[in-house]
Amino acid sequence: MAEPAPAAAGASDPTKEPSKNALKKAQKEKEKAEKKAAAKARELAERQKKEAADAEDVSKDSYGELPLTGSKDFKVTGTKREDLSQIADFEDKEITFRAWVENARVQSAKLAFLNLRQGLNTVQAVVAASEKLSKQMVKFSGNVSTESTVAVTGLVKRVKEPIKSATIKDFEIHIQKLFVESKAEVPLPLQVEDAERPIPSEGLGEDDSKQEESDGRPLVGLNTRLNNRTIDLRAKINHAIFIIKGGVCALFQEFLSQKGFILMQTPKILGSASEGGASVFEVKYFDRPACLAQSPQFYKQMLIASRFQKVMEIGPVFRAENSNTARHLTEFTGLDLEMEFQEHYYEVVGVLEELMLFIFTELNKRYKKETDLVRSVYHVDEFKLPEAGKVPRIPFSEGIQMLRDAGEDLNDYDDLSTPQEKKLGRLVLEKYGSDFYTLDQFPLAVRPAYTMPSPHDPKYSNSYDMFMRGQEICSGAQRIHDAELLSKQMREHDPPIDPNGAGTKDYVDSFRYGCPPHGGGGFGLERIVQFWLGLPNIRMASLFPRDPVRVTP
Amino acid sequence: MAEPAPAAAGASDPTKEPSKNALKKAQKEKEKAEKKAAAKARELAERQKKEAADAEDVSKDSYGELPLTGSKDFKVTGTKREDLSQIADFEDKEITFRAWVENARVQSAKLAFLNLRQGLNTVQAVVAASEKLSKQMVKFSGNVSTESTVAVTGLVKRVKEPIKSATIKDFEIHIQKLFVESKAEVPLPLQVEDAERPIPSEGLGEDDSKQEESDGRPLVGLNTRLNNRTIDLRAKINHAIFIIKGGVCALFQEFLSQKGFILMQTPKILGSASEGGASVFEVKYFDRPACLAQSPQFYKQMLIASRFQKVMEIGPVFRAENSNTARHLTEFTGLDLEMEFQEHYYEVVGVLEELMLFIFTELNKRYKKETDLVRSVYHVDEFKLPEAGKVPRIPFSEGIQMLRDAGEDLNDYDDLSTPQEKKLGRLVLEKYGSDFYTLDQFPLAVRPAYTMPSPHDPKYSNSYDMFMRGQEICSGAQRIHDAELLSKQMREHDPPIDPNGAGTKDYVDSFRYGCPPHGGGGFGLERIVQFWLGLPNIRMASLFPRDPVRVTP
Repeated sequence: MAEPAPAAAGASDPTKEPSKNALKKAQKEKEKAEKKAAAKARELAERQKKEAADAEDVSKDSYGELPLTGSKDFKVTGTKREDLSQIADFEDKEITFRAWVENARVQSAKLAFLNLRQGLNTVQAVVAASEKLSKQMVKFSGNVSTESTVAVTGLVKRVKEPIKSATIKDFEIHIQKLFVESKAEVPLPLQVEDAERPIPSEGLGEDDSKQEESDGRPLVGLNTRLNNRTIDLRAKINHAIFIIKGGVCALFQEFLSQKGFILMQTPKILGSASEGGASVFEVKYFDRPACLAQSPQFYKQMLIASRFQKVMEIGPVFRAENSNTARHLTEFTGLDLEMEFQEHYYEVVGVLEELMLFIFTELNKRYKKETDLVRSVYHVDEFKLPEAGKVPRIPFSEGIQMLRDAGEDLNDYDDLSTPQEKKLGRLVLEKYGSDFYTLDQFPLAVRPAYTMPSPHDPKYSNSYDMFMRGQEICSGAQRIHDAELLSKQMREHDPPIDPNGAGTKDYVDSFRYGCPPHGGGGFGLERIVQFWLGLPNIRMASLFPRDPVRVTP
Repeated sequence: MAEPAPAAAGASDPTKEPSKNALKKAQKEKEKAEKKAAAKARELAERQKKEAADAEDVSKDSYGELPLTGSKDFKVTGTKREDLSQIADFEDKEITFRAWVENARVQSAKLAFLNLRQGLNTVQAVVAASEKLSKQMVKFSGNVSTESTVAVTGLVKRVKEPIKSATIKDFEIHIQKLFVESKAEVPLPLQVEDAERPIPSEGLGEDDSKQEESDGRPLVGLNTRLNNRTIDLRAKINHAIFIIKGGVCALFQEFLSQKGFILMQTPKILGSASEGGASVFEVKYFDRPACLAQSPQFYKQMLIASRFQKVMEIGPVFRAENSNTARHLTEFTGLDLEMEFQEHYYEVVGVLEELMLFIFTELNKRYKKETDLVRSVYHVDEFKLPEAGKVPRIPFSEGIQMLRDAGEDLNDYDDLSTPQEKKLGRLVLEKYGSDFYTLDQFPLAVRPAYTMPSPHDPKYSNSYDMFMRGQEICSGAQRIHDAELLSKQMREHDPPIDPNGAGTKDYVDSFRYGCPPHGGGGFGLERIVQFWLGLPNIRMASLFPRDPVRVTP
């Protein structure tokens, strides 16, 4: 109870007989004072009640915002923080982990729910008031801003009904402690939830406007996503894409190093353009001009001439092509390899085909979860692999014939347009049952000057492209390993190339001192990822894509 | 025998008595005719002898120059070509393999020797005339030009005395067939044999002249070697260096992917300089200026903000620094990693130290042969690893004190000079018995603006360098994951950085939406290789090195 208000009539003299008016006035003042005192008492009571309640916050050490982690204690201590993929091991036990808040909501004064994410896992968490957990903590927990990073301790409980909204369906966390490690500002420039949904089919690359999907949820354009890429990348679908991309690199290396290929790094800054100067980025190199490598082609061949029998490289490739398409980037990742062969360039083609089959097979095994996740958003047919592991190897002339039979008007030595390539891909899939195939023996005229002419018909060449779902992912060939023939073919090339030029002489000369026959190929990593997953735009397979109009973030 | 010469006296009539003069004349003519006939007979005899000998060349299908390998037969056929490392399996059997000629010499009309190389293996081969092998083939084989590529078939024979001049000491090849696949021009611009020997100690980078070693063999300067790099690289020592370099990359990835790190590719073309514009290469990006990434620093942190918990990258790094030293390149390979941590940046330091110990230990195991080969040319002490796997982690202040005790004049917050770093390396080796150590808690003022200050003393920071043999190979830190603190520290940095600048805003903003505490580091791959092997110059660890004066080949 509040203390009684002190006598409010200090202004009146009790020994003096009061007049009626004076009495009335005194009465009024008394009432006023009493009211004031009551208000004061109420205020006090409330304050005391609140203080008492605060004193009662049994959870006050179990929640709140942590100070900035500055690694204060030099001894690494604290509870071990777990990986949510191990949650089943913690049934009915306490678990501590870091997560970020997908969303948090107060259900009632006594109950809050949070969806927490860690990697590709999401879990439901409950904060329920009890003797041991205060309503204040419920309120705090239910109001943590979306995308904040939190450190959570709780009990792992099996649930009766599977939880639909989380990837972890059989367990939920009964939170005991919740600390905000890094608070997200409000509002977010992009909702991660929106980034989980497909890009609008009309808005590839250019369209920024939000469009409505039939069920009323927004579809955010690719440009808006890329402008806010660090939020966009948080989406599970994007994590899956880049886990797969890293996986393709790892599988590429695993297969090839097992075959004796050595990983190399060739220079990206060149003194002069090597393979024609048209699509090259210029660099100011101290006081002289230089340029960026359009491919490691010359260098990987020079390494073969240096007697490294099998080399591979994973590195950036720069193309100053003003191509604003869904499958071109100005900077992409090249998966390159080059090898000597003994007698026939089919030894090389065989390695390339086997390599890709290995990658596809292992993606299906090791990255199934991630592949399924992406394909659940971008619905695409399963990637068909050839039966018995025999990749269709189709002569270019046969490809031309297949297209002609399907109504295309083509000359024997015409290069294929992108729509023709796609059409051929469909025809090959029908005929050979494979989404992956090799087109072999291209016309010499459409290939680079260093391509070995066919010994059977000099209008063709020992060169090949490889396709996924009818789109080119690889270009390769037997290269000319004889300096005289190479020089001749460079001079006769359209446009002619000077074999004694600043960017070519060292390359041509490297074949004068006993270079073995060799061949190889270059894959576009982002294209492999794009076509494997059926992504509508190659930019989605690049962390921070570069194209003729985008060079940020 | 030659046919007898026809009677030469056809001009005289045997029925007519000849005069004395006529007789004399006839006698003379007869002699002349006989001489002529004899000469003709000799000539014929020789021709016939030669024809007979040619007919006798029992080896004529077993040697010669092959036509240019144009992959003529579409069926891959022919004898399987073996790897010389398997030679012991072929004792007393026939083997076919490709090799290149280290040298060939005719010993006698009946005997020639060749030293053949394949990869890091060399073997001695004998061509001995016999009923089955012609002298012509001996002559041809002994005259194949050095560095030509050859296809060889022969019998593998065990030798009684180990062969000193080859890596394969117990076997030699008795050649049956030898074909030149690609003939090397004469003379070579650089002898591979010379490239096997050390560079002259005075001629690091600049000196082109040939110097004499004490035993009279030439020491070729580094510039000459780099100008003829495709020949230079053929040396076994260079093969070993780049096998080890590829190995470091593989071990880096093996260790980190096992720990859950994802391999990433961040952009190398940036819209604006990020970490200060001083040492940045400018690029002409279509109609606007851009530049090359000096490190993946900003991007790998943005990936942590994007909730990739652990990321790694192997990629080129570009530094427009006019540093002409034995340990600087303008383009090198960065081994980068970044990870969130839970409570203390020592979690990160621990991973980095463990990573490097793994790499060193496995290099000793898996690349011992290559390491020994290089160290046999560049004599260097074995790389000392710390006992019990505990990497010395020395506070910067202790490092300063050690140097002061050793006579160096240093203030508390001074950065170390290169000679001081080397000296400290020697002191640490003496005191802790390790060639690898971490220097921790650098002064804040000498570190980048994004470095987390020490919670104990704001003049220090949660940052570290790692050293091999007293030379820096890695720089790392806990990074500021709070946008406000980061902005403040950027503004207060010397020189100040605008947190809202074109190259910084996206980066700073990525920390507004709940970024976890994180740290990482960047290693220079070429430096690891250089200091592991004790190479006198970092250019030797780059295939085609780039420095302020070299951008070719």
